[in-house]
Amino acid sequence: MSDLIKPWILLEEEDISPSAWYPLRKHKVQLPNGLVVDDYFLSPLGDVVQVLAITPDNHVVLTRQYKHGIGEILLELPGGMQQKDKTLLQSAVAELEEECGIKAAEEDLKYICKFAINPTKLRQTTYGYILFNAQFNSTQRFDITENIEVITLPAPEVLRLVDEGTIWVTDSMNLILMAARQYPDIFGR
Amino acid sequence: MSDLIKPWILLEEEDISPSAWYPLRKHKVQLPNGLVVDDYFLSPLGDVVQVLAITPDNHVVLTRQYKHGIGEILLELPGGMQQKDKTLLQSAVAELEEECGIKAAEEDLKYICKFAINPTKLRQTTYGYILFNAQFNSTQRFDITENIEVITLPAPEVLRLVDEGTIWVTDSMNLILMAARQYPDIFGR
Repeated sequence: MSDLIKPWILLEEEDISPSAWYPLRKHKVQLPNGLVVDDYFLSPLGDVVQVLAITPDNHVVLTRQYKHGIGEILLELPGGMQQKDKTLLQSAVAELEEECGIKAAEEDLKYICKFAINPTKLRQTTYGYILFNAQFNSTQRFDITENIEVITLPAPEVLRLVDEGTIWVTDSMNLILMAARQYPDIFGR
Repeated sequence: MSDLIKPWILLEEEDISPSAWYPLRKHKVQLPNGLVVDDYFLSPLGDVVQVLAITPDNHVVLTRQYKHGIGEILLELPGGMQQKDKTLLQSAVAELEEECGIKAAEEDLKYICKFAINPTKLRQTTYGYILFNAQFNSTQRFDITENIEVITLPAPEVLRLVDEGTIWVTDSMNLILMAARQYPDIFGR
């Protein structure tokens, strides 16, 4: 790695969020070549947690849910935004219980990987965890705007759904693919 | 799959983009439970193309670039937004030449996969391609805000950088991981 590539310098920041639900910033920045850009727009959407939950019979817990950003019904892993006043792990535990009715202990979630989501326009990182021995021991609790169908499928079948493009949301794909590299036996190598 | 999960109905759309560089929409929507939400915000950021270019000696072409959204210098695959008046494939060819000085023929790019980027808040899909026999036969051409260092590394080493978290942008991770499943010999299985 050279020192050819340098970060930009933030000169001014303006909060132009249209809503608490869509944070937006206007930055005045200076580039390494001296150029000053008055209006660079980015959204600090906040961090995301996601859980690959595996049941005792080696099924993966999936959610089926309408997502209005893209306007489609999607098959994904459970997860959501980091919650207010909660750590990433606490948020992952909470999302799993709220979306799927699975109450897990924080110490049972193992970190798999993190990934940056559109680093040009967003400030958002997803943190992915795996949970073994997932139990449907609680009840779903939705926000009024949420409606989630929970589906379980054998882990090798879930990997096949990634390969064939049925599971095609980047967060879910990435966490499944990385988990399959770290725990190949689960996915039937 | 059941019919439990239904799409929302778009009632009104307002363009509240602060700039051509950050499209933003305010939607009034009706949910399947009848609830009307007056202010759902989403950004139709537009589609992205990305290329995993492999040289004749089995190296992967990587870019090192500062991304101000996340505020970090990142190692990624070449790519960018779909360009005006260009197809996805034409855009992929153009981005590869502009960022890396590699001029390829459209028919030499093979589709690997697509993925949705934050389907809750964005309307954005990335399309990933692989190019074999990549040649540095042209010259880089940057926008005035761009500065890109091109690096080539052996394909198995690039997969190791994904495994260890050094390559951690979701688009690049996903395309490398999917290509490694479709062309395992390249990555030294």
